[in-house]
Amino acid sequence: MSVGLYTPTDVHFGKGAEDKVGEILKDYGVKKVLVHYGTGSVKRSGLLDKVEKDLQENGIEYVLLGGVVPNPRVSLVRKGIELAEKEGVDFILAVGGGSVLDSAKAIGYGVYGGGDVWDFYCGKRKVEGTVPVGSILTLSATGSEMSDSSVITNDETDPIFKRGVNTPFGRIKVALLNPELTYSVSKYQTASGAVDIMMHTLERYFLNGESLDFTDQLSFTLLKTVIKYLPVALEDPNNYEARANLMWAGTLSHNGLMAVGNANRGDWACHQIEHELSAEYDVAHGAGLAAIWGSWARYVMDTDPSRFSKLGEGVFGESDPIKTVEKFEEFFKSADMPVDIAGLGLEFDDEACRRAALGVTFQDTRTIGNFKVLTTEDIYEIYKMASGN
Amino acid sequence: MSVGLYTPTDVHFGKGAEDKVGEILKDYGVKKVLVHYGTGSVKRSGLLDKVEKDLQENGIEYVLLGGVVPNPRVSLVRKGIELAEKEGVDFILAVGGGSVLDSAKAIGYGVYGGGDVWDFYCGKRKVEGTVPVGSILTLSATGSEMSDSSVITNDETDPIFKRGVNTPFGRIKVALLNPELTYSVSKYQTASGAVDIMMHTLERYFLNGESLDFTDQLSFTLLKTVIKYLPVALEDPNNYEARANLMWAGTLSHNGLMAVGNANRGDWACHQIEHELSAEYDVAHGAGLAAIWGSWARYVMDTDPSRFSKLGEGVFGESDPIKTVEKFEEFFKSADMPVDIAGLGLEFDDEACRRAALGVTFQDTRTIGNFKVLTTEDIYEIYKMASGN
Repeated sequence: MSVGLYTPTDVHFGKGAEDKVGEILKDYGVKKVLVHYGTGSVKRSGLLDKVEKDLQENGIEYVLLGGVVPNPRVSLVRKGIELAEKEGVDFILAVGGGSVLDSAKAIGYGVYGGGDVWDFYCGKRKVEGTVPVGSILTLSATGSEMSDSSVITNDETDPIFKRGVNTPFGRIKVALLNPELTYSVSKYQTASGAVDIMMHTLERYFLNGESLDFTDQLSFTLLKTVIKYLPVALEDPNNYEARANLMWAGTLSHNGLMAVGNANRGDWACHQIEHELSAEYDVAHGAGLAAIWGSWARYVMDTDPSRFSKLGEGVFGESDPIKTVEKFEEFFKSADMPVDIAGLGLEFDDEACRRAALGVTFQDTRTIGNFKVLTTEDIYEIYKMASGN
Repeated sequence: MSVGLYTPTDVHFGKGAEDKVGEILKDYGVKKVLVHYGTGSVKRSGLLDKVEKDLQENGIEYVLLGGVVPNPRVSLVRKGIELAEKEGVDFILAVGGGSVLDSAKAIGYGVYGGGDVWDFYCGKRKVEGTVPVGSILTLSATGSEMSDSSVITNDETDPIFKRGVNTPFGRIKVALLNPELTYSVSKYQTASGAVDIMMHTLERYFLNGESLDFTDQLSFTLLKTVIKYLPVALEDPNNYEARANLMWAGTLSHNGLMAVGNANRGDWACHQIEHELSAEYDVAHGAGLAAIWGSWARYVMDTDPSRFSKLGEGVFGESDPIKTVEKFEEFFKSADMPVDIAGLGLEFDDEACRRAALGVTFQDTRTIGNFKVLTTEDIYEIYKMASGN
């Protein structure tokens, strides 16, 4: 058996996609919604007002919970669970980007499953259900709107941990994707999101085993789409075409499509290596990935250079493995993304490399990666390369 | 709003995908299955025995109903509904190709909705639910395994009618896709299936309005995949790679992905024009489409030649609109597919063209198409071009 696909989310796409939210939830028979959001941009833009009005007009009750930050915190998730239980909500609506949505998913798992929600993220318990979740998306990046994934940061520990959980219950019920809602995203966040999008495909592409050629070719098409439209969106933030292509690329990059027919779900080492940076130093996830990827690629390349050749040929018409990596780095730089840890504004000495590597392997108790399996020592070497030590 | 996506089917893909059928249905809590199949190839191959054994081992009861023919008949659907009601089945498993699956969907609608099942196909009533349906697919062609579509032929009338219904309830619960099960498909059916696959994407590509570039590029990738792997499968029927790429292309071509972000769901005139041929003369659907497409393309080209240019550029690196059509026809011919009605072995005189055109427009009571809206007169001209009159 190879990788299959399960994407039950009902996706509405295009201008005004969010206008039907009240109607849709009413059709589902929803009585009371927890409207979850971030640090205020959806208030300032008027989106939240619009959603509230629409819920009211459709006779649906709601409570509000804002305050989600990038790398969303378990402490707020706990507040959300408490509020949802107290108010008896039967739907959670995430209005915002991937962090808000991941936080909403976590609240859903917690309300359904009871007990300590962190159990699901540290692997103590399996998610067995959720309160239904919907998304009005305002950022093209994480792909959480159609993925089975949620990543939460535990801010109650020292050092703090960032952990993800993948479960079929993470596939949300409905995603309302209006590319216009991403017009106001800053250049830096747009570029960081675009890297995240590319990396969700690259992580799947670098598997250890057979791939389906069609899936490889779809992956190249997706990468080329991001490479074509990110510069347009940076130059002209209100360009619908660019924002729409990036938004849909973000969704398809992480819904599982880019692994179907493959022997397995890919590598994912870079995500683990980056999570340690964004948990500890709160850097933007995509920027962190850009800072790491080239070093990872050079370190693992000998495992199978032909995989890099196929990628380069498919995306850039360039089959040299090293030049392929350089092409990606040139693209990152052209979008003002870092290609090393210094570019993140971090001073990362040998001690920091060691500490981060041990963090990734849970104090040397696991390996990561699949294209090439990486030990603490390998990860330490990659951090060293990425930090210029 | 543009076109969205809703694809809730749980897809299992790869060698041995069908082995878990009993286990999966047991997990769903299924008690009794109607196992639906065709004219015997799944018996001869041993697949049906294997499925029966697996259901038995998992303690699931079942009844068998074979006999589905290409362009599946409403008369057998009625038998299936009667049997399913008598036996109290709570799941319908289609073991076979798209015809078996479309018949299974129709039975599901009929059992759920009661009354005359043809009502759903002639537009008298809306489908409001279904008995859950699953597929073990043995042919890469119709994409019914993930589409919202079912097409049934009414053999109780004269002339007989072929009608399709699209409904969210047509999205089946589970699809088990093992490319090995298509090894035994004949060259002719393999090629005909491949044309059907290509046409599901081409029909969506020729819309009247804006398209999402990413979706266009995904469409080109899909078409190139079929063009690359059909000759391999014809040359070497047991080639897993070729069969796997064709199978997944078949599914993605018709699950809606190739229209997302577009202004509408495409043209679909060729399908209507072809349905008249396959209902009346029982030709293979894909072969019928190949026989029609070039004539349709030449007839409508002036509406927007740039759309043909983009297609040719993306698929063949050839931007001339006419040459693009010729390239597709050359490909069809290389796979022994017809490019005109004579190639279907039909003598189609002026009278037949007139009669078929009137059939398509329900006796001049509707138009078809979207890229260019076609009247009875237009369709008559296309039949004339395709038949050399």
